[in-house]
Amino acid sequence: MRDFSQDHAALALNTATLGRNVDGHGAGWPVERVIDACAERGFGGIVFWRREIGANAVAIGERARAAGLVVAGLCRTPFLTGPLAPRPLSVLMDDFSASIDMAAGLGAPVLTIVVGGVEPGTKGVAESLKLVGERVAAAAPYAAERGVKLALEPLHPVYGGDRSCLVTVRAAVDLCDWIGHANVGIAVDVYHVWWDLTLAQELRRAGKGRILGYHLCDWLAETRDVLLDRGMMGDGVADLKAIRAAVEDAGYDGLCEVEIFSAGDWWKRDPGEVLDICVERFRTVC
Amino acid sequence: MRDFSQDHAALALNTATLGRNVDGHGAGWPVERVIDACAERGFGGIVFWRREIGANAVAIGERARAAGLVVAGLCRTPFLTGPLAPRPLSVLMDDFSASIDMAAGLGAPVLTIVVGGVEPGTKGVAESLKLVGERVAAAAPYAAERGVKLALEPLHPVYGGDRSCLVTVRAAVDLCDWIGHANVGIAVDVYHVWWDLTLAQELRRAGKGRILGYHLCDWLAETRDVLLDRGMMGDGVADLKAIRAAVEDAGYDGLCEVEIFSAGDWWKRDPGEVLDICVERFRTVC
Repeated sequence: MRDFSQDHAALALNTATLGRNVDGHGAGWPVERVIDACAERGFGGIVFWRREIGANAVAIGERARAAGLVVAGLCRTPFLTGPLAPRPLSVLMDDFSASIDMAAGLGAPVLTIVVGGVEPGTKGVAESLKLVGERVAAAAPYAAERGVKLALEPLHPVYGGDRSCLVTVRAAVDLCDWIGHANVGIAVDVYHVWWDLTLAQELRRAGKGRILGYHLCDWLAETRDVLLDRGMMGDGVADLKAIRAAVEDAGYDGLCEVEIFSAGDWWKRDPGEVLDICVERFRTVC
Repeated sequence: MRDFSQDHAALALNTATLGRNVDGHGAGWPVERVIDACAERGFGGIVFWRREIGANAVAIGERARAAGLVVAGLCRTPFLTGPLAPRPLSVLMDDFSASIDMAAGLGAPVLTIVVGGVEPGTKGVAESLKLVGERVAAAAPYAAERGVKLALEPLHPVYGGDRSCLVTVRAAVDLCDWIGHANVGIAVDVYHVWWDLTLAQELRRAGKGRILGYHLCDWLAETRDVLLDRGMMGDGVADLKAIRAAVEDAGYDGLCEVEIFSAGDWWKRDPGEVLDICVERFRTVC
């Protein structure tokens, strides 16, 4: 297991941590200022959201790299199923392609997929997962052509209804197997998987080449809002060291991306303070 | 699989469905009126909460049986771990025994255990589950002596922090194996397990003798409150027929207990209407 106690070059910022992915939240720093603030503190990478990129993917990607940051990924595709997915399917797939194009423009090697919830008119997750598989399989060749890997991110089962019918690493690995495209893997987020006792064995089954991202935050024991009340690493009940050990035992040696949605706490603080604390917690508790 | 389309003798009411387990909710019917309303509608059984029993366990149990209802169970033991568990341990274990005594007084064959969250000072669920195992193992002989089985109920992973470090059927079966007492089994609740693709195989592993209860409600696609916004059967995305098939394939042939926590909807309605709809939905969508 890597030792981060004296070295946080493996630390990446997901800009959601500063509230940049939701209107009306965060300090409103321009993206250039976020890039510089991460670079000054020695972050190794950064992950953006589509809403902050607009038509400037190439320029923002170059700006980040010029500052010394790896552009590690882009969030995210549209929902592919469920009540929140774009309709009709042609609009959805066009937006899927647009998200691939943006990742390619940024020079981001990974595009995250939050798959969407249970398809209206169906029950349970199985039928919706099949639709997800078909839609990801349809997009994978184009993504490969553009040099972008697709990361299926299982979300916490609390989102199973509306945001993600994919709720376990096990199901994500099965879905990768079913899709069978070298360009498709998984992303592992502490918030979504901390409770899963089968995590280590399922990550070993995934194997190194298919773990495309590792996301850090914490699960607060008394979570007030399942969407926007994530904890800073160390403030919750997730066993962060054990989870990273499982991820690294499976072969992952990439960046560790802090992604904290926190409308009531961290998004209200000064972004510089938040970044400083991310560095300190990364070195001490992750 | 049993056919309930013309017969709801297997239907039981958990009185939480009428808001009786939370102060200030529900219509406030006396327990006798709830018993009669269930009996009039042909319910087969009823499950009570400790707060509505007080010192009248024997009388209430006899009253329910005289009306033609099976007293199927009692909710519940104190939390055994986590931030909400009674302290010190002696107080906790005394209350555990008191809950066993109440179940015995009622003539309820099953006492439900909601195990409690992650023990303060620890990380992840594993260490807390070990404490749960030790505490249940300590109480199991006394429960057996009093004729009460203990049902470990895995809760949805959203409760992992504060209410239940036991969040999957798989972990519940493992815990039963570890405890190794014939008096300890599991309860399966649609709300907590609907997302789990390993459910059928884990229930088969549990086997008939260890499935001590089956609870019905539904998971609303857009759940507004994870504690008090459960759906009526048919209104959500759980595949109720498939889940019951899995439970029955594993050998369960007991009562099906409707348990709907719904502060904003069902608890505001007339209890008679709620019970009528329970019967109709049980016959049509469960």
